[in-house]
Amino acid sequence: MIKAGIIGATGYAGQELVRILLGHKEVEIKWYGSRSYIDKKYYEVYQNMFEIIEDICLDDNIVELANQVDVIFTATPQGFLASILNEEILSKVKIVDLSADYRIKDVATYEEWYKIEHKSPQFIEEAVYGLCEVNREDIKKARLVANPGCYTTCSILTIYPLAKEGLIDMSSIIVDAKSGTSGAGRGAKTDNLFCEVNENMKAYGVASHRHTPEIEEQLGYASGEQVVLNFTPHLVPMNRGILATAYANLKDGVTEEMVKAAYDKYYKEEKFVRVLEKGMMPQTKWVEGSNYVDINFVVDKRTNRVIMMGAIDNLVKGAAGQAVQNMNLMFGFKESEGLELVPMFP
Amino acid sequence: MIKAGIIGATGYAGQELVRILLGHKEVEIKWYGSRSYIDKKYYEVYQNMFEIIEDICLDDNIVELANQVDVIFTATPQGFLASILNEEILSKVKIVDLSADYRIKDVATYEEWYKIEHKSPQFIEEAVYGLCEVNREDIKKARLVANPGCYTTCSILTIYPLAKEGLIDMSSIIVDAKSGTSGAGRGAKTDNLFCEVNENMKAYGVASHRHTPEIEEQLGYASGEQVVLNFTPHLVPMNRGILATAYANLKDGVTEEMVKAAYDKYYKEEKFVRVLEKGMMPQTKWVEGSNYVDINFVVDKRTNRVIMMGAIDNLVKGAAGQAVQNMNLMFGFKESEGLELVPMFP
Amino acid sequence: MIKAGIIGATGYAGQELVRILLGHKEVEIKWYGSRSYIDKKYYEVYQNMFEIIEDICLDDNIVELANQVDVIFTATPQGFLASILNEEILSKVKIVDLSADYRIKDVATYEEWYKIEHKSPQFIEEAVYGLCEVNREDIKKARLVANPGCYTTCSILTIYPLAKEGLIDMSSIIVDAKSGTSGAGRGAKTDNLFCEVNENMKAYGVASHRHTPEIEEQLGYASGEQVVLNFTPHLVPMNRGILATAYANLKDGVTEEMVKAAYDKYYKEEKFVRVLEKGMMPQTKWVEGSNYVDINFVVDKRTNRVIMMGAIDNLVKGAAGQAVQNMNLMFGFKESEGLELVPMFP
Amino acid sequence: MIKAGIIGATGYAGQELVRILLGHKEVEIKWYGSRSYIDKKYYEVYQNMFEIIEDICLDDNIVELANQVDVIFTATPQGFLASILNEEILSKVKIVDLSADYRIKDVATYEEWYKIEHKSPQFIEEAVYGLCEVNREDIKKARLVANPGCYTTCSILTIYPLAKEGLIDMSSIIVDAKSGTSGAGRGAKTDNLFCEVNENMKAYGVASHRHTPEIEEQLGYASGEQVVLNFTPHLVPMNRGILATAYANLKDGVTEEMVKAAYDKYYKEEKFVRVLEKGMMPQTKWVEGSNYVDINFVVDKRTNRVIMMGAIDNLVKGAAGQAVQNMNLMFGFKESEGLELVPMFP
Repeated sequence: MIKAGIIGATGYAGQELVRILLGHKEVEIKWYGSRSYIDKKYYEVYQNMFEIIEDICLDDNIVELANQVDVIFTATPQGFLASILNEEILSKVKIVDLSADYRIKDVATYEEWYKIEHKSPQFIEEAVYGLCEVNREDIKKARLVANPGCYTTCSILTIYPLAKEGLIDMSSIIVDAKSGTSGAGRGAKTDNLFCEVNENMKAYGVASHRHTPEIEEQLGYASGEQVVLNFTPHLVPMNRGILATAYANLKDGVTEEMVKAAYDKYYKEEKFVRVLEKGMMPQTKWVEGSNYVDINFVVDKRTNRVIMMGAIDNLVKGAAGQAVQNMNLMFGFKESEGLELVPMFP
Repeated sequence: MIKAGIIGATGYAGQELVRILLGHKEVEIKWYGSRSYIDKKYYEVYQNMFEIIEDICLDDNIVELANQVDVIFTATPQGFLASILNEEILSKVKIVDLSADYRIKDVATYEEWYKIEHKSPQFIEEAVYGLCEVNREDIKKARLVANPGCYTTCSILTIYPLAKEGLIDMSSIIVDAKSGTSGAGRGAKTDNLFCEVNENMKAYGVASHRHTPEIEEQLGYASGEQVVLNFTPHLVPMNRGILATAYANLKDGVTEEMVKAAYDKYYKEEKFVRVLEKGMMPQTKWVEGSNYVDINFVVDKRTNRVIMMGAIDNLVKGAAGQAVQNMNLMFGFKESEGLELVPMFP
Repeated sequence: MIKAGIIGATGYAGQELVRILLGHKEVEIKWYGSRSYIDKKYYEVYQNMFEIIEDICLDDNIVELANQVDVIFTATPQGFLASILNEEILSKVKIVDLSADYRIKDVATYEEWYKIEHKSPQFIEEAVYGLCEVNREDIKKARLVANPGCYTTCSILTIYPLAKEGLIDMSSIIVDAKSGTSGAGRGAKTDNLFCEVNENMKAYGVASHRHTPEIEEQLGYASGEQVVLNFTPHLVPMNRGILATAYANLKDGVTEEMVKAAYDKYYKEEKFVRVLEKGMMPQTKWVEGSNYVDINFVVDKRTNRVIMMGAIDNLVKGAAGQAVQNMNLMFGFKESEGLELVPMFP
Repeated sequence: MIKAGIIGATGYAGQELVRILLGHKEVEIKWYGSRSYIDKKYYEVYQNMFEIIEDICLDDNIVELANQVDVIFTATPQGFLASILNEEILSKVKIVDLSADYRIKDVATYEEWYKIEHKSPQFIEEAVYGLCEVNREDIKKARLVANPGCYTTCSILTIYPLAKEGLIDMSSIIVDAKSGTSGAGRGAKTDNLFCEVNENMKAYGVASHRHTPEIEEQLGYASGEQVVLNFTPHLVPMNRGILATAYANLKDGVTEEMVKAAYDKYYKEEKFVRVLEKGMMPQTKWVEGSNYVDINFVVDKRTNRVIMMGAIDNLVKGAAGQAVQNMNLMFGFKESEGLELVPMFP
């Protein structure tokens, strides 16, 4: 039994982490960090936890926290962890960072897209990008894991096998992604009010969304090429779920069978990636509440393009679930411990 | 490890039963009965179960089924179980019936409200009404449990302590209930299309809904009086959740403290009933995916009425979850086994 | 052609007023008042108005405004109009106030429920309660109309004929109302975020909602008795629509025919009140975007109660539409001018 | 005043046509055709029309209808009109066909994608493709107009100026479209039930949707090249609205200014096409209930692609509204008559 602390426990991702860890046999939550709700009962912030959690919310004292727990999850705004991390902390505790601070290896790229200075670039190299299905072995040895973004997890896993196997033209990739609204967080903004989101759809961050360089960097590693692509996120009136529809030109001679074989090669043994049967479409509802990624593709012979589709629950595989999967790898637990969640329908 | 069979496994309640039993340590599902999908893979009907369930759907052969399993769940239309049940079956297998066939003790009342003839009234007396918090001891000994309806579970538990303690005028009860749409089932009806339900609200079955006599009968047992009340269900654009708002005149001299004490008396030790703190309102989202009933009340001194509110997930505590809770009691398992589900938010 | 000014033009009700007045042949909007968005183009606040309205938002200068326009609509927080209204203004301009400032005739009641001091009680007596179907003749002569609240419009019109005709026990009334979320306004509050409202239902303001005394006062006038009742509002995941379900004990000897006759007596000639045929249930979607109130009832002989149901679009008949209907009466326009809006479905 | 008949008046598009025509000064509806509801009151099928329409639904007798009215709208399944149309009918009445029967000029293409034999190909050449902003002059002279599909209207208008002006590589076009659920019609199908659509997203008809050849054909005319493209529709949990996000490679030397100039050239004078200001994103809610198309674009210098976005209400500009716009042109009415609908928000 290890002890865990969460900084940012009252955001949507933080709360989902709590929900998942409550069902984890090897972990006990010792610290519900929330700058906004210090001294409030956790169940006053999330009433679903009434009679389940009696703890109160604590301040974000990472130094004190490092002494008390074995693992810290930071579900915090960009720049928070980078501004306080030091070697002493990392020597005492393992960290899974759900923010973007250590996801991008190139500091200049990070600073350009996020418009903030990186305060501790010395840890970027050490940090392991926590996409479990791709970097499993490195994660097992890591002290600091950069938990991937929600859009990026879905987009990268959807495209990865074809990039890795060299079946697609890497300069032709377009990712058109759609997300539920929980990804926008619990901050009180007019744009996220029920009446503004409900019965509405829009693209946002067109050609400028921060998840773009993260996707490009990882697909660059996979393909061995520098990748520049289009990524367009959309807001959709639902709570949970991301659907990524990705397009790429097939290289000459690539067949549907070869595409299928590539997906099977990388994902057949992966518990949390389900490559669907021909004709089954990924749908966000079929993965809701679970750590699954559902993936499928269609080859369009008329245009010689492949349309790749992936669906995740943005709060689980796109945030808290993957964070727990990373923790399981880091501590040598069964990788699926706490994550054997059957998708909830309807 | 016992073996279970489900007749009606491809309705919404049947599928929820599957979801819950997959996380139950003492039960293995052996029979996915579905007249409509015979020989289809279960995951072709519910794609969330892809790579989780490999079984195909089977016919509704209860005689054969009784030989193979220890418990049968019937999530079937009214009249189905009543038309085929016999002593031989009941001598071999325990049954939790999610239909209304054995809920109402008075056959005439059943036949009047359901407009069908009861084919096996000889089992009605034996059948135990499976409202676990009220009939726990009888359920433990039962062969046949009549699992309560969704509206009725929510309505009865919300009012029960005040009826039992004699604090309210039993002739003054009005229950105004609101439900998500999964309660209407998966049948293809125009009225349940997305565009008809979304952005819409309506009352239905006004003064004629079949759950009325079930609520009246049970509150009659609790209060020792014959109860006639108003029950008005409403359809609301959401998937899951029932909220019951109940009104009653307080008897002379009854105070807020006495009401609170009554709720605490019956529910303080109940794991699945959460009597909220003053000022916390039951909300369906806070119990979604879980077996909880959240209850609270307000005493209005101006009118001398008490407003009682209860919230459940209609597919869990209102159907499949309570069915599993009943099974746990019948087989001597831990009552909460398989049901320690943390509500999912958002 | 008259000139109109709107104070509070960028709230949901204010914007709906703009939408409706754009289709009104006798009115031109001259002043888009919005303290929060001064000097912003109106279409930057409401993008639906792009290429339709070129005006910018102006400050709330009611004195200046009174010189420029013939009618002022105040869609403002409680207390605003009361704090600035004076005889000079009223001598120059007619006012339709969408706030609660002049709805309640008893100042003490207003101050108790709204928790604010009334700054200009001298105008309360003059102000006409703008429920057009009830107070039509007085509205025609009014300088100052208090536009009714959304819940109150729906609740009062649903019950009015039976109260007026003395068919129900006025001490037995319970109103259980359900509303979409636009009634909560466009303020950025966590409680109104998409993820908090979607897939959720709750009661709020139980036994304490401010629309209670307004309903009581008006039904008191109708029945000639002092009325105390229960009113419970609920929040439902939809943008628009209020459904009121009201319960009352029928007086001895009152039949279904008598109830029907009462509704017909008061509403048969009313364009905007549709008493539905037997078996048709009021549904909010069927009145969306229109000024209609759909009403029906069921007599329950078992309990001798009548269940009355009414549905409106809270932003139209519950706010902006009724405000325009009032203006039409005040200026001698055709009562339905600008309001011949066919409900939009789906 | 002309007389209109509607065949298929009880589908969603048919009903929207009724809603719009009720506000049209030059048209009277004389025939509510509906094979499924013959002899039923129209308001029994669409309760919003209670006290507005007293007519009953009639059979689909187009020969009789041609004698009685000046214009027929067919909102019918594919193949219906083609199977009954003849010269005698066309000599008596003008027809706006909301089905796909006469949209595609190449019969073989029609038969391949729609999997039905075309029964009256002799009228295909005469039929005018009713995209008003593109074919206005031809529509004015037409007897038979093929009203464009919902996805196609949105997709073509979004891309048209850049195709026409030769600014983009026509072989690089990808259209990723998202639609509300009313486009799926009112047929009772499990896939369109509230609980299946709500909180869910999926792509469908990937590389095989029937609107593909229609988009290709029209953009082919615009660009003077044969066009093959990818079109992927998605189902989103909302009633109304289509958002098309289109991607294309810019030709060498094409700048943001040139793209903007192209949009302005074709749409500046168009009432129903609103090219938004830089930074404003098309959102479906801002056009709901109206005949507007909102369009904008972003040039991504990193990839040298343009991302074009368009939003419509699928039932208005994507069906009934455009049908009325076509009728207005055919009969010489003011083009916007009956269509000056302000978008409804929220």
